[in-house]
Amino acid sequence: MSGNSAQTDPLRIGIVLFPGFEALDAFGPLNCINDLSWTENVSLALLSATLEPVTTRSPFCPGATGQSVVPTHTFTTPPPLDVLIVPGGQGTRVSSPLIEGTIAFIRDVYPQLKYLITVCNGSGLVARTGLLDGRRATTNKKAWEETTALGPKVYWVPRARWVTDGNIWSSSGVSAGIDVTLAWIEHLYGEGTAQGIADGLEHTRHKDSAVDPFADLYGL
Amino acid sequence: MSGNSAQTDPLRIGIVLFPGFEALDAFGPLNCINDLSWTENVSLALLSATLEPVTTRSPFCPGATGQSVVPTHTFTTPPPLDVLIVPGGQGTRVSSPLIEGTIAFIRDVYPQLKYLITVCNGSGLVARTGLLDGRRATTNKKAWEETTALGPKVYWVPRARWVTDGNIWSSSGVSAGIDVTLAWIEHLYGEGTAQGIADGLEHTRHKDSAVDPFADLYGL
Repeated sequence: MSGNSAQTDPLRIGIVLFPGFEALDAFGPLNCINDLSWTENVSLALLSATLEPVTTRSPFCPGATGQSVVPTHTFTTPPPLDVLIVPGGQGTRVSSPLIEGTIAFIRDVYPQLKYLITVCNGSGLVARTGLLDGRRATTNKKAWEETTALGPKVYWVPRARWVTDGNIWSSSGVSAGIDVTLAWIEHLYGEGTAQGIADGLEHTRHKDSAVDPFADLYGL
Repeated sequence: MSGNSAQTDPLRIGIVLFPGFEALDAFGPLNCINDLSWTENVSLALLSATLEPVTTRSPFCPGATGQSVVPTHTFTTPPPLDVLIVPGGQGTRVSSPLIEGTIAFIRDVYPQLKYLITVCNGSGLVARTGLLDGRRATTNKKAWEETTALGPKVYWVPRARWVTDGNIWSSSGVSAGIDVTLAWIEHLYGEGTAQGIADGLEHTRHKDSAVDPFADLYGL
């Protein structure tokens, strides 16, 4: 797909936002996509339950700091999508209509996607749809037990920076979202494009999906 | 300052936002601060010219993707601040009232600050205030020549992940903002707090400020 910029149709990327999403889970991948969009034809939708700004503040710590990000589309009026990114964060740990709506949107939109990318315990939201049943996936290593319990039929891989199974790419915690996004960009647009973005970000990539220092750290 | 959470007064942190700020320049440090705020007493203000959402979209690429973030304060109604973070991005490269207003705010607020932290070519904005004259600082390595030209009286350090001089901490490009923020957190709250945040982010830290693979990459 290198040379996608010459195509008429953009690659249509979306990301779901919900209260208490982890800032870097979203903005690591999004910075990579912003940089990709300088040379390739991609579009981006930020999807949430409503068009109200969505906070990163943890629902479990009212005194915590947070930032508010403006959605572009609601779950009921999404544009056509080829790719969906699902971040994690403490907000995934609550049971609320907003989280249930996010899970329902992921389930409903999946059949039209070419790729689904999860960051951190965003894979827990996808696990709750059933879409990961019988598939290999990974997640945040510090929140391993809690997240993997959400998908008892998933083949959870404890030692992985990221895992691909079919068209679902799941990454480990937070900053691993940058590495899975760069790996996915490399898959679609080639190594030069991905490494060029990484170099521009001055990001030292984890390039081997099986090397995972945080599995050791958290005793997995 | 470890144990700051027991104090009455929070550490009051601000960040400036302007059109075309680099997403990860801001949200790398902000995710560290969000996590810090779970255990320590900190407050956060997002400052811009107006309270309108501020886009990360590059002003030089109208078709590029971007995200909009909601400020909490304007430059004319700032809260008291102890710390200011200045991100970079392509938006720094334009001459506009918004950028001039950002530079003026940095200049005016600096005397009240305990710390000023720059990410990427955010140091170029600070250089334009004159506050870096006679000081050591670093910046984005890919944009080295363009940014350093903004501060001919600055002692620019080409091989550094980050540089401290007095109370000004300047980092190299984009993801180096995470490393300088963690180093600054370590300075204030101790190694355990900083490493705990890094581990939670599954971020492999650059812990030595003088080790800089990107200086080699860009021939500096």
